[in-house]
Amino acid sequence: MRSVVSFYICYVLCLCLGLACVVCVCVWNSHWRQGFAWDGSNQQFNWHPVLMVTGLIVLYGNGAVLYRVPLTWGQNKLPWKLLHASLMLLSLILSILGLCAVFDFHNAKSIPNMYSLHSWIGIAATVLFALQWAVGAAGFLLPCSPVSLRKLLKPVHVWFGGSILVFSIAACISGINEKLFFVLSGNQPYSSFPPEAIFANSLGVLIVAFGLVVLKILSNHKWQRPDSPPEETGYTQVIQDESE
Amino acid sequence: MRSVVSFYICYVLCLCLGLACVVCVCVWNSHWRQGFAWDGSNQQFNWHPVLMVTGLIVLYGNGAVLYRVPLTWGQNKLPWKLLHASLMLLSLILSILGLCAVFDFHNAKSIPNMYSLHSWIGIAATVLFALQWAVGAAGFLLPCSPVSLRKLLKPVHVWFGGSILVFSIAACISGINEKLFFVLSGNQPYSSFPPEAIFANSLGVLIVAFGLVVLKILSNHKWQRPDSPPEETGYTQVIQDESE
Repeated sequence: MRSVVSFYICYVLCLCLGLACVVCVCVWNSHWRQGFAWDGSNQQFNWHPVLMVTGLIVLYGNGAVLYRVPLTWGQNKLPWKLLHASLMLLSLILSILGLCAVFDFHNAKSIPNMYSLHSWIGIAATVLFALQWAVGAAGFLLPCSPVSLRKLLKPVHVWFGGSILVFSIAACISGINEKLFFVLSGNQPYSSFPPEAIFANSLGVLIVAFGLVVLKILSNHKWQRPDSPPEETGYTQVIQDESE
Repeated sequence: MRSVVSFYICYVLCLCLGLACVVCVCVWNSHWRQGFAWDGSNQQFNWHPVLMVTGLIVLYGNGAVLYRVPLTWGQNKLPWKLLHASLMLLSLILSILGLCAVFDFHNAKSIPNMYSLHSWIGIAATVLFALQWAVGAAGFLLPCSPVSLRKLLKPVHVWFGGSILVFSIAACISGINEKLFFVLSGNQPYSSFPPEAIFANSLGVLIVAFGLVVLKILSNHKWQRPDSPPEETGYTQVIQDESE
């Protein structure tokens, strides 16, 4: 019982921090960075932080901890698997759109792509995420994938999931830092502590805090969904029957 | 047996990646950034990345996984505790020296301190590390600390240890990224992919890889040191006897 209560405290914190990250990244880019467009201007760039933080951090983190919610444990696993895969796919699509926003912006302004460490880490996070989604879907959702493969794949999938989040956090922090050095200059340089700098730095701290709560939830073995008896795993039973 | 072999594969990877990080950060700063001094010049700044990567990442990560080495499990825990605490203290001292290098450099050049997101995340990592060391030393090394407190503290200590590493990775990636934007300009801007940029970006990737291997080792419950029987824990036995 104490374990369930402490899970829900962490989970509520995860939801609140995730919501705070999305609100803050939207406020930063609409209030201080002149909002959004898709025309190769600076306003197109603004979609990049919003979509990456929302997709690669917040939706991703919430999708990752979905199985840990004890309320779902008594129910058939298949609908939760589909929800997990759908949330992750949505998160991946938002991340790819976020990358398109910045590539398009760079191309319109004739700025080279993929030269900074931020871009290397960010692209690594997205490529690993796409691979993780494809391998996860093939391994855990395709009815033809054998149960023995699923058992082998599960700890690798969980560990890779956490690792991608670490990549994403590092990419977001370096990206916000880089952006603030680019845009805060002249009368109000970054080093003069303007309100935008304080606000966006706080967004960075919120992102790290959110990531750590997600990693905490993922790493606590007491909070893992107990392995379902075969009759509760949906079509897994069919595969087992067929292989027997 | 398979678990021990896979541990040692990870551990060797951890040692090699750690060594590669230290070598690369030294080569970067001596070959491309004109080496080291302690006179308020740019060469003083160069101590900052070297000391932070060596202290807050590599020594810290190696100190964190020390208890996971199966060779140490059959032996009395106390000497390993003292070695863990000493490695962490050395890592903390190097990190504080790394901060002194950059504060001193900023003060000499009249550059404000602590305004960037990189500095916020980096100072948070070091402050949390100092707190973790103090609480760890008081909780696990002081003979007067009760066994019940140690049991309560252990999972918090392990989780905090991993979290500090995530902070440190984010701080290092944003710091290397920021430094490259500062120093690569004129004829050879960062965006023209000069050799220094490729080299320092690769250092960033090595740092993330090292951190992920350490987090992998820490998160695998099969690789945790089994709880020692009371007669092997050194002076813990004395406390137990006294409290009985």
